[in-house]
Amino acid sequence: MSETYNYSALHSFTKQIFLKIGCSEKDAEIAANSLLSADLRGVDSHGVARLSGYVRLWEAKRVISNPAIKIVHETPSTAVVDGDAGLGLVVAPFAMQLAIDKARQVGTGWVSVKNSNHFGIAGTHAMMALQYDMIGIAMTNGSALVAPTFSVERLLGTNPLAFAIPAGNENPFVADFATTTAANGKLEILQRKKENAPNGWVQTKTGEPSVEADEIKKGGTLLPLGGDKQHGSHKGYALGAIVDILSAILSGANYGPWVPPFPAYLPMPENMPGEGIGHFFGAMRIDAFRTTDEFKIHMDNWIRRFRSSKTIEGQDRVIIPGEPEVEIEKERMKNGIPLMKPVIEDLEKLGDKFGIILLKDCISEFS
Amino acid sequence: MSETYNYSALHSFTKQIFLKIGCSEKDAEIAANSLLSADLRGVDSHGVARLSGYVRLWEAKRVISNPAIKIVHETPSTAVVDGDAGLGLVVAPFAMQLAIDKARQVGTGWVSVKNSNHFGIAGTHAMMALQYDMIGIAMTNGSALVAPTFSVERLLGTNPLAFAIPAGNENPFVADFATTTAANGKLEILQRKKENAPNGWVQTKTGEPSVEADEIKKGGTLLPLGGDKQHGSHKGYALGAIVDILSAILSGANYGPWVPPFPAYLPMPENMPGEGIGHFFGAMRIDAFRTTDEFKIHMDNWIRRFRSSKTIEGQDRVIIPGEPEVEIEKERMKNGIPLMKPVIEDLEKLGDKFGIILLKDCISEFS
Repeated sequence: MSETYNYSALHSFTKQIFLKIGCSEKDAEIAANSLLSADLRGVDSHGVARLSGYVRLWEAKRVISNPAIKIVHETPSTAVVDGDAGLGLVVAPFAMQLAIDKARQVGTGWVSVKNSNHFGIAGTHAMMALQYDMIGIAMTNGSALVAPTFSVERLLGTNPLAFAIPAGNENPFVADFATTTAANGKLEILQRKKENAPNGWVQTKTGEPSVEADEIKKGGTLLPLGGDKQHGSHKGYALGAIVDILSAILSGANYGPWVPPFPAYLPMPENMPGEGIGHFFGAMRIDAFRTTDEFKIHMDNWIRRFRSSKTIEGQDRVIIPGEPEVEIEKERMKNGIPLMKPVIEDLEKLGDKFGIILLKDCISEFS
Repeated sequence: MSETYNYSALHSFTKQIFLKIGCSEKDAEIAANSLLSADLRGVDSHGVARLSGYVRLWEAKRVISNPAIKIVHETPSTAVVDGDAGLGLVVAPFAMQLAIDKARQVGTGWVSVKNSNHFGIAGTHAMMALQYDMIGIAMTNGSALVAPTFSVERLLGTNPLAFAIPAGNENPFVADFATTTAANGKLEILQRKKENAPNGWVQTKTGEPSVEADEIKKGGTLLPLGGDKQHGSHKGYALGAIVDILSAILSGANYGPWVPPFPAYLPMPENMPGEGIGHFFGAMRIDAFRTTDEFKIHMDNWIRRFRSSKTIEGQDRVIIPGEPEVEIEKERMKNGIPLMKPVIEDLEKLGDKFGIILLKDCISEFS
């Protein structure tokens, strides 16, 4: 059902596609890095599987491949960035770097972004801060699939949130999650397997509980983390709302039900109140609070105490956020990235269109 | 079962108790404001019901009533505050004001606090930012009651998180919630009513699902928001962990299983790695991103769209975070604050000890 491709081959293919749609050398490299980081970390729904989706947005003139990304307002610790309808994969690293630069100067940096597009996985951008001994934060809104508690309408995206926190000898703490019970990608996997979803993931279009993995296709909605009110869905709803507000109302992007959809064939929402989709980034210098050494000693202590915690019978260990992804990344760097047949076919079709051959362990161009 | 006391009477009583244990006039006023804000907003578990608990911490010499709160490290946008074992009710407003002052200067302010105690409800501190047209953020760690996903050990507190976001003509958006499925106070209510808890709130000491509202007393644990892995408890666990790390590892407070307990009769954890409990505060000036007017127009638009959303049959409306609390506060300011019999008796005993009479609508001192 799947075949394995090595990182360099996929990276090279992806970069050349981005060059073909008009990205600069530098932007194509950045976009390929952003996109492939999802495949490396095991978030298969957000990696090269989406490459043709980005290209279709460019074909629909919703993505500009050589954007003039600019800072439209700033203070010593903040900025608003206009992504000029660029690839979120490129706009996000620009904005995160700006947050880091501001943190260097005044301790922290906070950047809200408008007029952007899908930025891949949040964790990758947050992790840019780690090499500077900073805490990195990244979030984005997305097109509406989620009903707030008590509602039957799609008003929020799955609005993910990532925190990357440096440690000493241990791997960094990296949490990256949708503010829903389950990300849409998990439902897609169940749909392919023709399996039911657990209760609390989706509801029907009239708000009845449902276990149908394809309920979304029938007008249903995803549910905020918590599932229902009794299990705290108002908290998941509040979290998704906070991501939406910081990403879009602070910056001037679209929010709530007006966020443009990722699939280029879907119509744009009517009466959009902003520009593009919104992101929010933060960087906090550890030594703006205490010495980096002290912080790292205690972070290591925290991680070891939690990892060595007594588990429920049958469970191997307590997971430290980010640890499984480090293991997947090591394994995939060594043994390659498995791609499902439909993804391979999709990439090959894309390659045919642009005259790029998809190879398993190297890359060549025949144009 | 309950009697009603007016705000002024309870405030005056509370303030005089704080004066009696040695707080300055100014600190007693601030502490009474912090504590009573919980009763006004309907969070009955965190208001005057806890007053005798704070006094017992002072009697146990774990709270210092005239602390020398100080800034131990700072940059233009950050600081670490040492609460000097003061009341969290007083330390928190000091630190939040510092965050606001920094935001005035450089756009945002971020303050991590060590060596503090229980600070009441997070929302009250976050809301201090609203009058300055800033977004306010407040969080705190707490003594361990919560097991991370797959664990049977108590390693995290209920670690609440609050965001207060200004609006224009609408009430501000104020989300304030424990990072668990349900706050401990909700379990205490069920215990009093001898009712079961919903699945997903607690587990037994061996990690079996349980609906016993008093499972905690039998060695069980609370569960992170999500309840179990299938419903996203790893996200609730990550959120609680982030609150712990920002509050305590950035500042030098105790974290994880080492956070000191609120009840003064409980023993302190062994081998504590820090000082007291930790908080974290943030303030972001709206006009450090875009004009306050523009922001408020879009916040109002967001709020109205969500509030007018189509509901599930039988549900009145979609709730905007903070809206129910505004209604409760109006009602209680007008008609008084209902106190349960055991709380009244507890306050009367406290009054006897310090020579303060608890009155229903005024206050006098007989010492």
